[in-house]
Amino acid sequence: MTEPIGVAEADTLIARHMPPFGIERVGLDQAAGRILRQTVLAEHDHPPFDRVMMDGIAVRWRETPARAYATAGVQLAGMARQTLAGEDACIEVTTGAMLPAGCDCVIPVEQVEREGEAYRLVNGYQPARGQFIHVRGSDCPAGATLLASGMLIGAPEMALLAANGVATVAVGAIPSIAIVSTGDELVAVDEPLGEGQIRRSNDVAMAASLRRHGFDRVVREHVVDDEARIGDTLARLLATHEVLILSGGVSMGQRDHVPAALEAQGVRRVFHRIAQKPGKPMWFGVGSQGQAVFAVPGNPVSALVCAIRYVRPALLAALGMTPAPAEMVCLDAAVDTHSMLTSFVPVHVHTDAQGMLRAHPVPARTSGDFASLPRTHGVVQLAPGLGPALAGTVAKLYRW
Amino acid sequence: MTEPIGVAEADTLIARHMPPFGIERVGLDQAAGRILRQTVLAEHDHPPFDRVMMDGIAVRWRETPARAYATAGVQLAGMARQTLAGEDACIEVTTGAMLPAGCDCVIPVEQVEREGEAYRLVNGYQPARGQFIHVRGSDCPAGATLLASGMLIGAPEMALLAANGVATVAVGAIPSIAIVSTGDELVAVDEPLGEGQIRRSNDVAMAASLRRHGFDRVVREHVVDDEARIGDTLARLLATHEVLILSGGVSMGQRDHVPAALEAQGVRRVFHRIAQKPGKPMWFGVGSQGQAVFAVPGNPVSALVCAIRYVRPALLAALGMTPAPAEMVCLDAAVDTHSMLTSFVPVHVHTDAQGMLRAHPVPARTSGDFASLPRTHGVVQLAPGLGPALAGTVAKLYRW
Repeated sequence: MTEPIGVAEADTLIARHMPPFGIERVGLDQAAGRILRQTVLAEHDHPPFDRVMMDGIAVRWRETPARAYATAGVQLAGMARQTLAGEDACIEVTTGAMLPAGCDCVIPVEQVEREGEAYRLVNGYQPARGQFIHVRGSDCPAGATLLASGMLIGAPEMALLAANGVATVAVGAIPSIAIVSTGDELVAVDEPLGEGQIRRSNDVAMAASLRRHGFDRVVREHVVDDEARIGDTLARLLATHEVLILSGGVSMGQRDHVPAALEAQGVRRVFHRIAQKPGKPMWFGVGSQGQAVFAVPGNPVSALVCAIRYVRPALLAALGMTPAPAEMVCLDAAVDTHSMLTSFVPVHVHTDAQGMLRAHPVPARTSGDFASLPRTHGVVQLAPGLGPALAGTVAKLYRW
Repeated sequence: MTEPIGVAEADTLIARHMPPFGIERVGLDQAAGRILRQTVLAEHDHPPFDRVMMDGIAVRWRETPARAYATAGVQLAGMARQTLAGEDACIEVTTGAMLPAGCDCVIPVEQVEREGEAYRLVNGYQPARGQFIHVRGSDCPAGATLLASGMLIGAPEMALLAANGVATVAVGAIPSIAIVSTGDELVAVDEPLGEGQIRRSNDVAMAASLRRHGFDRVVREHVVDDEARIGDTLARLLATHEVLILSGGVSMGQRDHVPAALEAQGVRRVFHRIAQKPGKPMWFGVGSQGQAVFAVPGNPVSALVCAIRYVRPALLAALGMTPAPAEMVCLDAAVDTHSMLTSFVPVHVHTDAQGMLRAHPVPARTSGDFASLPRTHGVVQLAPGLGPALAGTVAKLYRW
């Protein structure tokens, strides 16, 4: 039996062995929440023309305003550009319209009074040259880089894709994922519960944590603790999925068939066991076609911690996502840590009145205890040490 | 024209007029990301039986351990409960199995050596009574409240729903939402761009910001600045949707037909104009069947700020979500604010090495400038004041 590796080494080994998932093109309506895999340049100057910023009149500016400006046309948003007749004339304009040629000043409707076929400025109003004009190209020039490959596509990114004519978008292709719960004791959510049995929940929870980040090509299966059945299931799923996530059967017991069954199916072990609690028995390997195979312990807290700490970040990186810096939190109470293993402790987080992100430990009593998890937002990672981590300790947060 | 109202008053008025969206029942696989609308009680004790926590042997504890424990059976996870024959016997057990009757101690496989049909403890190993037993009901007793109505269903909540036999889940019903962009100058993402035209992007961005929070029943439409066409579109959409979100045409100009068109369709105005920048012209009203109608300005930054600051929180509250406390951030640089209006300023946020959530202002030069938004995470809300908000100011964050 090999020694457990450290959490940082596990990260490195997983990153080194993840397959790339490729790039696909989707319609703009399907792009939100995906990882951008192209550069997006400004299709044209932004704004594409000198743009009127207020409803009112457009004029040619003069040191001493005209007594009245004769109405010489209307320039609405969307219209081709008008031309101003002369410096005693004006053109009525609306927000978003092109600035008419010959104009260099927009006077808001609140500052003018209609006088027959002309507009007078209200008493004493003195416009500035160039006012209320959003100058062509002032936000960004045509060809400027607006979006870089690796960004998560949220609402602002969707606005820029739409505004720059990107009707189909290159994004990271979502891999097909199979999540397999192993264990004779497991029954489905809608089946009767017999003596010694519990309901399957790890596959459901891990699928939810992945789906929240866009991984929606997920199937869930169950297989009993039988070497032949596990082998058959693995062979079938390795042929049809790019990622396998197994829970249970990964420890050292006589019914822990998963590591041997994986290796029998040609999945090469990269590591087995991480020096951490919970989740020490975690196994990771690579299939003969490059499939990524994660096997996590069957305890609910262990399984979910391994899924959010290793599996989800590895999948997002393999989509091409630029890594985000870790979220750092400040413990607001002391919590026990393990002297030899990295500890993951569930926490409730909130920002205090100073803007400090504070984490309150809600330690599970056992790695099977998940009744208290719904009051938490994720786990903090605490290094091995002598004695507890004290209040004020700063740690990395991994959200559920 | 009425005076603009304050942001807090806008929140109150919207909350008072939002229709309830009702409750629907969905299969467990559809429940992630939804708002729970039922209480979930523990279906049984957790764990439901005294549960073995290590692979090894189960024995009856004695002050002086037996020289050897005769193997008298196997208790695997999922099996009905065995009974121990006597205090010199043991039963082989696996993690997750029921503790056999008559046993009160589990000795891990690493601490025993096989000796024919018996197990000997390794030299000097002294087990404790009760060790490695996860006692029935120790996580929570049957009937205990595990999940409360109003929670967002994430991965831990999914685990508990699954583990407690909740195969169909009562959740807030997602309303049908129509987003309508108004403006003659707007063309679709895949259409040629003519003189004076820009592409529709507000509807795309607002739909993305809603979809990220589970609002996936969204249609997007475009209508030109024509009173009759706007009226027809509104009449049709009010008959088929619970929520309307319009962008553009809501200011005071001669082409701003939206408020009048809404009132002509029986949508009662609750307020028009909020003392804020951007987004001052925002309009909110209620249709004759209780439909919630939001009309936001057409500038991209204004539209998105109104959507995340008012529309999305109002929709989540109407789903029955328990309000979460605001995220507070600490400005890391000074930023100009308006003397009379609440300011919303785009910010990039990160946690520093102390766990402080720091916000770096990335102010838009105009409410039409959205090229810089992709480097930001949301906006901070800054009260009106004399002079800029200084570095160190703590403010509420609203994420995109």
